[in-house]
Amino acid sequence: MAEIKGNENIVFVGKKGTMSYVLAVVTQMNQLGASEVLIKARGRAISRAVDVAEIVKNKFMTNVKTDSIKISTEEISTDEGNPLKLSAIEIKIIK
Amino acid sequence: MAEIKGNENIVFVGKKGTMSYVLAVVTQMNQLGASEVLIKARGRAISRAVDVAEIVKNKFMTNVKTDSIKISTEEISTDEGNPLKLSAIEIKIIK
Repeated sequence: MAEIKGNENIVFVGKKGTMSYVLAVVTQMNQLGASEVLIKARGRAISRAVDVAEIVKNKFMTNVKTDSIKISTEEISTDEGNPLKLSAIEIKIIK
Repeated sequence: MAEIKGNENIVFVGKKGTMSYVLAVVTQMNQLGASEVLIKARGRAISRAVDVAEIVKNKFMTNVKTDSIKISTEEISTDEGNPLKLSAIEIKIIK
């Protein structure tokens, strides 16, 4: 059975609707055989990443739980080339 | 020396500017002698709560670290009396 390595199962949460990312996580877990998925987001998308993790756990996969949550600060470069600090989150869910 | 119990040191992050909450956390830790502060937020304010924790750690109190992060779903009642599910976060920082 195909087991995908931890770090490859990453869902980056951005500006799309919450359910797009919920579907991506559920697909990784159900169809691709992943036993863990890392949900990552930066800036304002952090709230949506928490929604995604909670909806997956409460509505779609009740056998899944939150394994760990990390927050950090990432420095990105704006379009004008200026540095910008953004908060980031990583939520690891496992089954 | 006055030591305040853990659960009483809570900063609820809402719609004000990020720095208001940073100041609240720093005040709790520096002036009120708290050794831990719980930063809580719901819904869209979750991103701001992560910003608050990161700014406190990186800019104001480098002796502080993140102890634990929990996410959950809370059911609140809207003004019309309808139930509404909201994601929530609790970030515990300690020194």
